[in-house]
Amino acid sequence: MSTQEKAETISRRPLKFCMFTTNAPSGYPGAPWHQPMAAGHDYRSLKSWLKLARDLEAAKFDAIFWADHSGIYDTFGGSRDAAIRNSVQFPINDPATLVSALAAATENLGFAFSENVIQAPPFSFARRVASLDHLTEGRVAWNIVTSFQRSAWRNVGFEEVATHAERYARAEEYVDVVYKLLEGSWEDGAVVRDSATGVYADPAAIHPIDHAGDFYRSAGPFCVEPSPQRVPLLFQAGASSDGRAFSARNAEAVFISAKSPRGAATFVEDLRAQLVEVGRNANDVLVFQAFTCIVGATEEDAQLKADEYQAFLKDEAALVFQSAAMGVDLKGLDLDTPIGDLNTQAMQGALRALAEASPNKQWTFRDAMLKSMTPHAVGTADQVIEKMEEWAASGIDGLNIAFLNGVGELADFTRYLVPELQRRGLMQTEYAKGTLREKWFGASRLNERHPAAKYRRKALMDETIS
Amino acid sequence: MSTQEKAETISRRPLKFCMFTTNAPSGYPGAPWHQPMAAGHDYRSLKSWLKLARDLEAAKFDAIFWADHSGIYDTFGGSRDAAIRNSVQFPINDPATLVSALAAATENLGFAFSENVIQAPPFSFARRVASLDHLTEGRVAWNIVTSFQRSAWRNVGFEEVATHAERYARAEEYVDVVYKLLEGSWEDGAVVRDSATGVYADPAAIHPIDHAGDFYRSAGPFCVEPSPQRVPLLFQAGASSDGRAFSARNAEAVFISAKSPRGAATFVEDLRAQLVEVGRNANDVLVFQAFTCIVGATEEDAQLKADEYQAFLKDEAALVFQSAAMGVDLKGLDLDTPIGDLNTQAMQGALRALAEASPNKQWTFRDAMLKSMTPHAVGTADQVIEKMEEWAASGIDGLNIAFLNGVGELADFTRYLVPELQRRGLMQTEYAKGTLREKWFGASRLNERHPAAKYRRKALMDETIS
Repeated sequence: MSTQEKAETISRRPLKFCMFTTNAPSGYPGAPWHQPMAAGHDYRSLKSWLKLARDLEAAKFDAIFWADHSGIYDTFGGSRDAAIRNSVQFPINDPATLVSALAAATENLGFAFSENVIQAPPFSFARRVASLDHLTEGRVAWNIVTSFQRSAWRNVGFEEVATHAERYARAEEYVDVVYKLLEGSWEDGAVVRDSATGVYADPAAIHPIDHAGDFYRSAGPFCVEPSPQRVPLLFQAGASSDGRAFSARNAEAVFISAKSPRGAATFVEDLRAQLVEVGRNANDVLVFQAFTCIVGATEEDAQLKADEYQAFLKDEAALVFQSAAMGVDLKGLDLDTPIGDLNTQAMQGALRALAEASPNKQWTFRDAMLKSMTPHAVGTADQVIEKMEEWAASGIDGLNIAFLNGVGELADFTRYLVPELQRRGLMQTEYAKGTLREKWFGASRLNERHPAAKYRRKALMDETIS
Repeated sequence: MSTQEKAETISRRPLKFCMFTTNAPSGYPGAPWHQPMAAGHDYRSLKSWLKLARDLEAAKFDAIFWADHSGIYDTFGGSRDAAIRNSVQFPINDPATLVSALAAATENLGFAFSENVIQAPPFSFARRVASLDHLTEGRVAWNIVTSFQRSAWRNVGFEEVATHAERYARAEEYVDVVYKLLEGSWEDGAVVRDSATGVYADPAAIHPIDHAGDFYRSAGPFCVEPSPQRVPLLFQAGASSDGRAFSARNAEAVFISAKSPRGAATFVEDLRAQLVEVGRNANDVLVFQAFTCIVGATEEDAQLKADEYQAFLKDEAALVFQSAAMGVDLKGLDLDTPIGDLNTQAMQGALRALAEASPNKQWTFRDAMLKSMTPHAVGTADQVIEKMEEWAASGIDGLNIAFLNGVGELADFTRYLVPELQRRGLMQTEYAKGTLREKWFGASRLNERHPAAKYRRKALMDETIS
C-alpha cells in the first residue's frame, strides 16, 4: 500500500487528542495560575512536567502541545504592566527545553512545541529539532509560528515587526532552508557505520545546501545525521488567508479555534480544497480544534468547578489578551454597554468585527469577551462528549484540549471522560507503533507530495517509490 | 562571611572532576566511535546518556562537559571528506537538548554545554539557558565559544568567518546582552506570586534592557523570571591572548589543554594575575586541565586497553583534527620524516611552532601529532593518581577527564580510581548542597566583582551586601 493510499484510509474516529498548554504560570489566556486546580502544577519544576507527561500517556493522549511567544502583550493601555501583573503568558519559558526530559519519562506521547521563525537561524533550529527527534525516537512536532508581536521582534534584533506579507515570505523561506537541511543534505544511504573499517558516513552522499535567499543564507552540509522522522511533524495555526495558504503548502496538522462546529466545517472544507489545489491530498493535513471542558461525576460537581474558575477570571487579564490578539487597545472601553448600543461604525476593524459578529446585541462587550473564555462544555462525561461529537461531525481530526481551570482538571478528564470516549471509539485505547508521524499517517517520513520531498536525492526516491 | 572571603578560602583539594565529551559518535578527536569501549554508548540514544549521567553521579563527578561546534572540519586537503568518513566530530548533535533529561535522572551532576555566540540571538539563548536553569534547579553551565570555523559561520548566515578580534568583540557584546537580560531585567523582588490577589509579578520591578550595540539589539524585558543561578556558571576555553583576556573578564571556569604541568602552572599564574588586574579575585576562576587516562587492576590490564586504543587510531582522523586546530592543511606532509630534518623555516606558523616545540628532534611528525592523542596516564590507580598529583601541583582546580578509549572506560575509572582518589582527599565523597555555583563558589549568584553584577538593580544590591 502506498503512502497516498494509507493517508486516504485514515479514519476520523478515534479523534486525536492533544493537550494544549504553555511553559508559563498560567495555562491559557484567562486561566490564572492561582486558581485551585492550577496550583498543583509549577511550570518551573521538572517534576511537575514529568508527572503531567506520564499522566497524559496513561490517558492515551496523542501529544502535548505548547503554544509559545517570546515577547510580551503590551497593546492594552499601551503598557505591559497588566500582562505582568496578571501573568498573561508572561513570564514564559522555552518549551523545547522540556522535550528530552518528558521523552525519557514516556514511550509514546508526542511533543509539539511552538517556535517562531525569528528566534534562531534555520540551521541552528534544524540542528536542535533534529537532535530532539533522535532523542525522542521520532516523537517531535514543530508548530511553525510567524510572530505578530512587535515586542518579540524587538527582542531578537529587529527594529520593527515585519509586515504580514513579509512575515509569511520569511516563514516560507525559513521552512525551505529547514527542509533542505533535513531532507536534502544527507542521502538515505549516507550513514555507513561500519565498525570493521571505522567508516561512519559516506562523504559522497552528504551535500552542502548552499542556500542564499532573500532572508537567509546557509551553506551546509547539515551536521546532524538523519533522525527517525527527519522533518518534525509540522503544525501550523495561522487563520489569516496567508496563514491558510502557508498551512496548505507546509503543514501536516493545523490548530484552529473555530467559534462553532459550523465554522470548523467551513475551515476544513476550504483547507481540503486548497490542499488538492496545491497538489497534496485532502487528508494530508489533520485539523485540531481547540476544546475546553470541565467534567464532573455529576453536573453539579462540574458546575461547581466552573463557578470556581469564573470567580478567578479578571477583566483586566482578559482585556490584555484580547487587545493583543485584536491589535486594538481596549482600555477605556465601557465593558458594560450593550453591544447594540455601541457605535460600531466608529470602531477599529477587529473590534468592530467582534461586535458585529455577536449573536446577541443585548450582550455587553464583557459578555462577548468572556464568552471566548468560557469552556465549550461543562457537565458529566455524557454531556461533554455530546459537545465533542458536534465538533467531530464538522470533519475535524482531533481536539486540542485546554484546561481552563488548570492542569488539575486532567485527573477528572482521565477518570470520567477517557473510559467513555474509548468505549465509544472516540479515543484510542492503545498507541500505534512508531514515530509520531507513523502513528498519525502510517509512515515516519513526509510523503512525496510535501514540498520538502523535492529536496530528496535519488537514493531516497528509489526507496519511497518502491 | 562575604562572598569575597568565601572565594578566598576555597581549597584546591578535593579537585573538581568533569567528564569531557561531545554529542557525537566519537568522544574526542582521535577517539573513534568503533573502538570496543566506545561501542556501548550510542550518542543518539537517550538511554545511553541517562545511564552515563547516573554513572557519573554515582562516581561523584561534578559535571559533564560537552565540547561542541556547528560546522565541519574541512582544512585537511581542503575537503570535508575525511572528517565525514572518520566521524571527526561530525555528525554532531546539539548538546543542550540533553540537559533536561539528564537533570531528571540525577540530583547533583552539573551540565556544562558549549554554545557559540553565532548560533542564536542573545535573547533566544538567554531564554533557553534560563529555562534550563529552572528545570535543573541551577545546575547549568555555559561554555562560551567564539567559533573559528568558516563552515560554522557559513551555516548560520554569514559569508565569512569574522577576524579574531571581531569574534571576541562580538562575544563581549553577546555576553553583555545576556547579562543585562539575566541580571538586569528582573529585580530580586519582582516575583510576587500572591495567590490571594492573583498578582504574579510587579511591573515596576521588571525593566526593558534596550540594548543597541555594534552587533546586537534587544529590547526586553526578559521573558523568563529569575532562575536559581540567574546567569549559568560561565566556562571559557580560549587560549589566545584575546581568549585569556575574555576569560579574565567573564569566566568562572576555564578549560585548558596545557602540554605539561609546568605549562599549566604558567597559565594559572598569568590568569590569576590578570584577574586581579581587572578587579576580580585571584580565585574567582577555576582552572580545569584536560586529562586523559586508562586505568586497570594491573599495569598490564591498562596497557592492553591502551594498545587496543592505539590500534584504532588513524593518521587521517588525527590529521583532520590537527589541520583544523592549526588552520594549516597537513595533507601531503611526509609524516615519517624526523622533525629535525624538516625545513621548519619554510613552514607555516602553527606547524612550525609544533615542530620547534617538539622535545625530541628524532620524532617524526606522526610521533608529535599522536603524542597529543596519547593518554596522560596509563596504569594502575596509583600510577594514574601520581600523574594527577603532578597536574594538581600546578595550581589547577580540577580535571576535565576525557576517555580516549571510549565512554566504557568510566566503569574502570569508577571502580579503581574513584575510591583511591577519595581516600586521598583528591575527589569529593559527597556533593555539596545547592546549585552548581553554590557547590563550587558557595553562592548561587555571580559575585559582585563579575561584570554582570553591575546590571543588578538596587533591590538586589542591598541583599548581596548584607
